[in-house]
Amino acid sequence: MTIQLNERQEKIVDIVKRSQPITSEAIASELKLTRSTLRPDLAILTMSGILDARPKVGYFYTGKTSLSYISEKIKNIKVSDVKSVPIVVDESTSLYDAIVLMFLEDVGSIYVTSKGFLSGVVSRKDFLRNAMGGMDLNKVPIGMIMTRMPNIVYVDLEDSVLNAAVKLIDHEIDSLPVVEEDEKNYKVVGRITKTTITRLFVELGKND
Amino acid sequence: MTIQLNERQEKIVDIVKRSQPITSEAIASELKLTRSTLRPDLAILTMSGILDARPKVGYFYTGKTSLSYISEKIKNIKVSDVKSVPIVVDESTSLYDAIVLMFLEDVGSIYVTSKGFLSGVVSRKDFLRNAMGGMDLNKVPIGMIMTRMPNIVYVDLEDSVLNAAVKLIDHEIDSLPVVEEDEKNYKVVGRITKTTITRLFVELGKND
Repeated sequence: MTIQLNERQEKIVDIVKRSQPITSEAIASELKLTRSTLRPDLAILTMSGILDARPKVGYFYTGKTSLSYISEKIKNIKVSDVKSVPIVVDESTSLYDAIVLMFLEDVGSIYVTSKGFLSGVVSRKDFLRNAMGGMDLNKVPIGMIMTRMPNIVYVDLEDSVLNAAVKLIDHEIDSLPVVEEDEKNYKVVGRITKTTITRLFVELGKND
Repeated sequence: MTIQLNERQEKIVDIVKRSQPITSEAIASELKLTRSTLRPDLAILTMSGILDARPKVGYFYTGKTSLSYISEKIKNIKVSDVKSVPIVVDESTSLYDAIVLMFLEDVGSIYVTSKGFLSGVVSRKDFLRNAMGGMDLNKVPIGMIMTRMPNIVYVDLEDSVLNAAVKLIDHEIDSLPVVEEDEKNYKVVGRITKTTITRLFVELGKND
């Protein structure tokens, strides 16, 4: 929970940032107000830790900002809070069947398992590249074209969504499998996509 | 700019929410503290407008929260602040050439123009559907398979990014052309995608 500063408090912070250390007399004279008018504002700003007051020296700015508050909020959202259901097929599935499933489920990526554990990831881009190549989509198993472990980027349930979003951007991918480790193998328990992040952005933005 | 409340202040807000109106004596006794210990906290909470104090009645909760602050911040970001460069082809371009361009530019959607104005949009999903259909990709112009005006969802430069994100989610699309109107036609001046939103989410989250 946070407090929104009023306009005068914001002005005081600007003045202190610019001219620190600065006395309350100097702030009051710059704002053409009396010291007693400023007293409640300065009390809020120091009690909250935005400004620091040193006797006989004046006020200092401590550097707390609202953006660090937003970032704190975002860092506290976990993968397990927002993940969606993963669409999973076995390595032996044909490319054709996998593409049909992708359209049916309307997802951008499919996860591939071998004996129930994560072995690969295939994106719409991979499918398109192979469909262009003119191969017989019914005869090629998905295991032939997928990105394989250990080249798969994934997250676990306890990761922050921020960390997941960073991975999506840094690796230029659309989707991350959410995994649970089971004796050095990985079970697929969810997915995080750019749609997940966009939906979360909308929720944060609409909340009032 | 905002103030982060401390743990005791958050507790006070919770108590007031639950038992309003409530006197400072009652809050102090619930927290097993003296009234004078609470005084600075109650001062911050009332001066900032989170709590309202009425003489002889007690404290009320006014309903201000941090989430509304985040949402305010998000609503102030405009499409023009974050848009990327659009990838545009003419309607006469072959499907094959358009797909190659999409791979070269590594984008998920391509915008189509006729006489320089927006006439259609094609996504990776549209390309895949048609590549599966077995048509001769060199002979079919992109104008044959694109989503046409007036069925295109778009935004303009002055729209909020929040509004763009809502459109992406509501219409289940990956990309929005950013347009400028020119006598009832639209020039394509940018694009907003789920990648744009994910990147923005990372920026908001990393900022400290």
